[in-house]
Amino acid sequence: MSKKILVLAGDGIGPEIVGEAVKVIGVLQREYGLDVELDSALLGGCAVDASGEPYPAATQAKARAADAVLLGAVGGPQYDTLPRPQRPERGLLAIRKDLNLFANLRPAMVYPQLAAASSLKPELVAGLDILIVRELTGDIYFGEPRGIEQRNGERVGFNTMIYSESEIRRIVRVAFEAARKRGGRVCSIDKMNVLETTQLWRDVAEEVARDYADVSLSHMLVDNAAMQLVRNPKQFDVMVTGNIFGDILSDEASMLTGSIGMLPSASLDEHGKGMYEPIHGSAPDIAGKGVANPLATILSVAMMLRYSLERADLAERVERAVSRVLDQGLRTADIWSAGCEKVGTVAMGAAVLAAL
Amino acid sequence: MSKKILVLAGDGIGPEIVGEAVKVIGVLQREYGLDVELDSALLGGCAVDASGEPYPAATQAKARAADAVLLGAVGGPQYDTLPRPQRPERGLLAIRKDLNLFANLRPAMVYPQLAAASSLKPELVAGLDILIVRELTGDIYFGEPRGIEQRNGERVGFNTMIYSESEIRRIVRVAFEAARKRGGRVCSIDKMNVLETTQLWRDVAEEVARDYADVSLSHMLVDNAAMQLVRNPKQFDVMVTGNIFGDILSDEASMLTGSIGMLPSASLDEHGKGMYEPIHGSAPDIAGKGVANPLATILSVAMMLRYSLERADLAERVERAVSRVLDQGLRTADIWSAGCEKVGTVAMGAAVLAAL
Ligand SMILES: CC(C)[C@H](C(=O)O)[C@@H](O)C(=O)O
Ligand SMILES: CC(C)[C@H](C(=O)O)[C@@H](O)C(=O)O
Repeated sequence: MSKKILVLAGDGIGPEIVGEAVKVIGVLQREYGLDVELDSALLGGCAVDASGEPYPAATQAKARAADAVLLGAVGGPQYDTLPRPQRPERGLLAIRKDLNLFANLRPAMVYPQLAAASSLKPELVAGLDILIVRELTGDIYFGEPRGIEQRNGERVGFNTMIYSESEIRRIVRVAFEAARKRGGRVCSIDKMNVLETTQLWRDVAEEVARDYADVSLSHMLVDNAAMQLVRNPKQFDVMVTGNIFGDILSDEASMLTGSIGMLPSASLDEHGKGMYEPIHGSAPDIAGKGVANPLATILSVAMMLRYSLERADLAERVERAVSRVLDQGLRTADIWSAGCEKVGTVAMGAAVLAAL
Repeated sequence: MSKKILVLAGDGIGPEIVGEAVKVIGVLQREYGLDVELDSALLGGCAVDASGEPYPAATQAKARAADAVLLGAVGGPQYDTLPRPQRPERGLLAIRKDLNLFANLRPAMVYPQLAAASSLKPELVAGLDILIVRELTGDIYFGEPRGIEQRNGERVGFNTMIYSESEIRRIVRVAFEAARKRGGRVCSIDKMNVLETTQLWRDVAEEVARDYADVSLSHMLVDNAAMQLVRNPKQFDVMVTGNIFGDILSDEASMLTGSIGMLPSASLDEHGKGMYEPIHGSAPDIAGKGVANPLATILSVAMMLRYSLERADLAERVERAVSRVLDQGLRTADIWSAGCEKVGTVAMGAAVLAAL
C-alpha cells in the first residue's frame, strides 16, 4: 500500500522551497519506484488567514492519517500581534503534540564545500557532524501550571518545567540508538546543579546507558555545552537534551555550520511516523523572490525517506545529488561565495533533479 | 570610613588568582589612597570541608557586613557526589540570594591583543564589547514548587520558572542605565512565543523603555540570540535576560571572545553592594600549579572599584595596567600564542603590579 505524505507548505518562503522538494519526490516516484501519495493542507499563518486557526481540524485529520508530513516553515510579522492561540507557531506546537512527535533529530553538519561559510575558523568546523536529539513534546513548552496572574498587587508570569522518567527514557533511547549507527557517543545535556528536573534527566540517562554497552555516555551542563559548541564543536557525536535547552543549543549548533539553509530536521513519534522540515524559518523578507535555498527542504525529504518511508537507498541518492550540485559550484544567495555561480530556488531545485 | 571587602578565595585555582588580585588591592591602598579593609572567609567546597556547609553562618555574617565581596571560584569533582545542599554551587546560589545580588553584569569583550584566540574569524570579534545583564536571584533557579516526586507510578521532576513584574523592572532598568553609558542599545532576550513568563518580561521591558527616550530597545528570541551571537556578535551592545537564559547566553558569549581567563563579572544589589568574580570556574585540573590566569580576577577588582567603591579612576588604572601587560606580550598558558612570553600566575600578577 502506498504511504501517505502530507505536504504543509506554510508561510513565507515555505511554498517556494516545498515546491522544489515535491518535484524531487515526483522524480523518485516516476523513476525509482517510490510508492507514495501526496496530499496538502494548511498550517500556520496561511491556515489562520483561511480559517482563523493555525492547526485547523481539516489539517489535523489529514496529519493523523498520514505516514509522514513535509513542512516548509510557518510564521511572519503580520501574525505577531494576533492573540496567542492564533499565532502560527501555536500550530507548530499543536501538531507536534497532537502527533506525539517527541523526538526531534537535528543534524548540524558542515559540507566540505561550504566550510568557509562558517563564522568559526574553518579548521574548527571542517567535517563537523553532530546530531542533536531534542525532546519535543514535553518540558516547559507544555508544562502546567502556566500563565500570567495578579499576585500581591502585581503581575507574575510563571511556567512549569516538567519531565517524567518515561518521557526522558524514550528520548534518551532514541539518542543511544542513533549513536550506535554513528560515532557511538552520547553527550546528555542538563543543568543538574540547579534544576531537579534535569537531575532526574541525568539519573534516567545513566539507567538507559546500562542497556547500551557499546555506546558511551557523558554529561555536560547546558552553560558549558553552549561554550563547548563554540570552542570545539567536533568533540560531539550525539547530543541529547530537553525541549528548551535543545531549542537553544540546536540553533546555536546550526549557526556554527554557517549554512542553516542546508540543514534538515525530523520530528518522530514512537512508530516511525514523522514530520520533516528545514531548520530555518519562513524568511518573510525574501518570500516570493525566488531566491530561497530549497536544499534544507530537499534534505528533509531524504530524512523522510530514511526514517518514515524505509527507503534509505533513496535517501542516500538525494543526499548525493545535493552534494553533487554543491560540487558543481551552484549556490543560492545564502551560501554563495566568490567564484561560485549564484542561482535561485527553482534553478537549484532543477539542478538537484538533474543530479538525481 | 573605610569600605569593607570580604575575600572568598574558594576552591581550585581560587586562592592563587585571588592572591594576585589582593596584591593589586594592596598597591591601591598604599599608593593611591584606596581606603578599604580586607577580611576573608570560606565559601564553596573549602567551606564544606571545614564546616559541612557551603555558605556557613560565619561567612554569611561577614558577607552581610561587607560593602563588596571578591570571589575566586567554587567547586571541584570531589564535591560532585555530596548531597545537593552541600554542593559548592549551593553556596554560590545562597550568597547571591542572601545578599540580593539580582544584577549580574557580564562583559564579553575581546582585547585587541587577543583577537586571534577566538574560535571565530578575527574580523567577527575584533573590538567586540557586549555587556550581558543577567537577572540572578529569580527565575527557575529559585522558583517553587520544585523537586522529584512519584506520580502515577513513576518519578517526575519539576521546576518553576517565575518572574514578577517588579523583578523584571529592576533588572531591565539596570540594563537601560548601563546602555546609557555605552552604546545606547538594549536587546532584551525572551521566549515570548512559548513562555508566558517571558511574555510578561517583554511587556515590562517595553514599559521601562518609555522612561529612556535616549536608549533603544529591541527584542530577540533566545534561540535566535544563541545563533546571532555566533553569526555576528558585534550587533549587540547591552543584552538583558533572565537567570537561566542568561546563564547559557553569557557563557556562549564569553567563549566567543576566546579568552575566558580575561573576563570579570559583577553581581550587584540595589544599593551598589556587589560580589565580583572571574567568569571562569575553579579549574581543578590546574589548581596549585601556578599557571592560572589571574587577570579576570584582577579585572573583577576593577569592576568592584567602579561599582561598589566609587573609584572609577582606579578602575581605569587597573584596566590600563592589564592592557599594558598584554602589550608587553606576557601571556598565561590559557591565552598564550606563538611569539608571546608564557608566564605563570605570580609573574602575571607581578607584571600588573609593576604596570600600575
Ligand atoms: C517557533 C517555535 C515555537 C519553535 C520552538 O521553539 O520549538 C522553533 O524555535 C523551533 O525550534 O522549531
Ligand atoms: C555554578 C552554577 C550554579 C552557576 C549558575 O548556573 O548560575 C554558574 O554556572 C554561573 O553562571 O555562575
